[in-house]
Amino acid sequence: MNDSSPLIPELDTACATRVGRYLDTLTKPPGSLGRLESLAVTLAAVTGEDFPRVSPPGVVVFAADHGVAEEGVSAFPQAVTAQMVANFAAGGAAINVFARRIDARLEVVDVGVASDLPAPGVVHDKVRPGTRNLAREDAMTQQEAQAAIAVGRRAAERAIKAGCRCLIVGEMGIANTSASTAMLAALIDVPVAELVGPGTGVTGDALAQKLAVIEAALIAREADPDDPMDVLARLGGLEIAAMVGAYLGAAAKRLPILVDGFIATVAALTACRIDPSLRPYLIFGHRSQEPGHDRVLAALDADPLLDFSLRLGEGSGAALAFPLLEAAAAMLAEMATFAAAGVDNHEAH
Amino acid sequence: MNDSSPLIPELDTACATRVGRYLDTLTKPPGSLGRLESLAVTLAAVTGEDFPRVSPPGVVVFAADHGVAEEGVSAFPQAVTAQMVANFAAGGAAINVFARRIDARLEVVDVGVASDLPAPGVVHDKVRPGTRNLAREDAMTQQEAQAAIAVGRRAAERAIKAGCRCLIVGEMGIANTSASTAMLAALIDVPVAELVGPGTGVTGDALAQKLAVIEAALIAREADPDDPMDVLARLGGLEIAAMVGAYLGAAAKRLPILVDGFIATVAALTACRIDPSLRPYLIFGHRSQEPGHDRVLAALDADPLLDFSLRLGEGSGAALAFPLLEAAAAMLAEMATFAAAGVDNHEAH
Repeated sequence: MNDSSPLIPELDTACATRVGRYLDTLTKPPGSLGRLESLAVTLAAVTGEDFPRVSPPGVVVFAADHGVAEEGVSAFPQAVTAQMVANFAAGGAAINVFARRIDARLEVVDVGVASDLPAPGVVHDKVRPGTRNLAREDAMTQQEAQAAIAVGRRAAERAIKAGCRCLIVGEMGIANTSASTAMLAALIDVPVAELVGPGTGVTGDALAQKLAVIEAALIAREADPDDPMDVLARLGGLEIAAMVGAYLGAAAKRLPILVDGFIATVAALTACRIDPSLRPYLIFGHRSQEPGHDRVLAALDADPLLDFSLRLGEGSGAALAFPLLEAAAAMLAEMATFAAAGVDNHEAH
Repeated sequence: MNDSSPLIPELDTACATRVGRYLDTLTKPPGSLGRLESLAVTLAAVTGEDFPRVSPPGVVVFAADHGVAEEGVSAFPQAVTAQMVANFAAGGAAINVFARRIDARLEVVDVGVASDLPAPGVVHDKVRPGTRNLAREDAMTQQEAQAAIAVGRRAAERAIKAGCRCLIVGEMGIANTSASTAMLAALIDVPVAELVGPGTGVTGDALAQKLAVIEAALIAREADPDDPMDVLARLGGLEIAAMVGAYLGAAAKRLPILVDGFIATVAALTACRIDPSLRPYLIFGHRSQEPGHDRVLAALDADPLLDFSLRLGEGSGAALAFPLLEAAAAMLAEMATFAAAGVDNHEAH
């Protein structure tokens, strides 16, 4: 972290304890709402509020291109990144649909799309038009990675300023499972073959090619596994760096963060390596179908809310899980106590 | 089934096939929304609609008492059933909170509470004031069980008439995990010891007592495991019978049904034994903490949407899972196609 980064506050454990006790006064057998009760306590610890609110949520989707796309590692051509940004702007993508369902503030940020985007409503905060090809050279310089992190921080700050109470961070970037798989292999020292997966749909020979490209890049780039900024710059992506910045920025302001799928979780692991005090601010939305997701979730000791075999990204899985956070908050705010409802509480006698 | 029961229609497989194909034209890699795509296909098959709707959902909570409560099988006194019905009427219970979050029509039906309820807004359709004590005699006569099923059918019909597009069925009845555990042991021929659990919070000696009571009742009642109506009448509950009727009534009108926890799933198994054509209309909301739930889910080949360690009942877990169905429907109705959005669909070339 550079000196100007705001610190992440400690959890409010006193508030968490109060909320845990209050839960046992509500008209339900103690503990009978299971994981929803744990979520409520987490929200209290993160926000410091006895009646935490998570609505409206903010969804920020960072879009960027990857030089490594030229190695044929994706099922889709690079142009799809820009086309999907236009689709986000027009409201037709999965994340648009799911963000509307949860009344989210949705912002799409171009942090590094290769082409110039005329799409209205997209925030232009481009660090450079795509990363370099990590198979041949470092994807970013340290300065570029830091600049992309700053883009993410600014997006989190805009969401907070607009009144958002919870942050969901998504991504769009053709070839970004290759970049994040390379990062993960470096960060947790696991063979690429145990992590690599289809991404948006690579199979057969193309998957073997993707594996070979990542393995070779990992050796050639010599990223220092103990230096998360080095791993991020050499092997990462502009949108991945922006996600790191958004997480750090949101946690600094005590916002609960609902983490999406594989790429979002690799970004979360990177951010936690940069500042371990981020970890308790993260709630994990879902376990995706990408093979490496299990490994990065385990590295973060994370137990996601949903297991839905998703592999889309965009923040879509986190948005699908959001109503569970909202229900946890509503349980605290709206349920009657045994005393108020005149219900016998045998446990209390 | 008696002759007056409406038949459950076959699934619309042609509609399911059309929707499955349409999903691959939407702006996402084919299959990348995983389980949400399967849900959309299920909703199409059940409703026969290319763009199925599930909102507004109807939540019906059936309340009844159990004679077996006098054997000390519950952590709460019998009076809590009526007190909780009053809490439902006042809007303070968990199901009230979660039903509001999903804009559900919530109806509470007294199908057999032991005391008379002054609670306003509760539908009074009482078959009798609680079952007989199944440890000593049959819980219900065949006629009483049939009458309670009819109560459930009427409730489903009211929900449908009010415009509901999906049904969630909950229950409240002190001691009803004992009744449903006895039913399940009879229906799937598994020792009670492998099924019995804490219900709302019974542990230690009280749990041993609960086990002994259920084991003895199972032997004494001699319910015919091949006759689900016999099992329901001798070992069941009025609210459990009403749930059976609600499921059958909703499926007859092609409504998707979102099943709640342990008791709701035992009622679902019973209903499927009565009419196996019910099964494909059932979507399972969550895997509860009650040990027998895994077994009854397996007997139904069911894979629930959530795994949240809930053990409350009331329909609460199904209501928590409902936004996932709504998201599946919204994905179909609102996402742009590749062609409309001008996004390259490599898979289609």
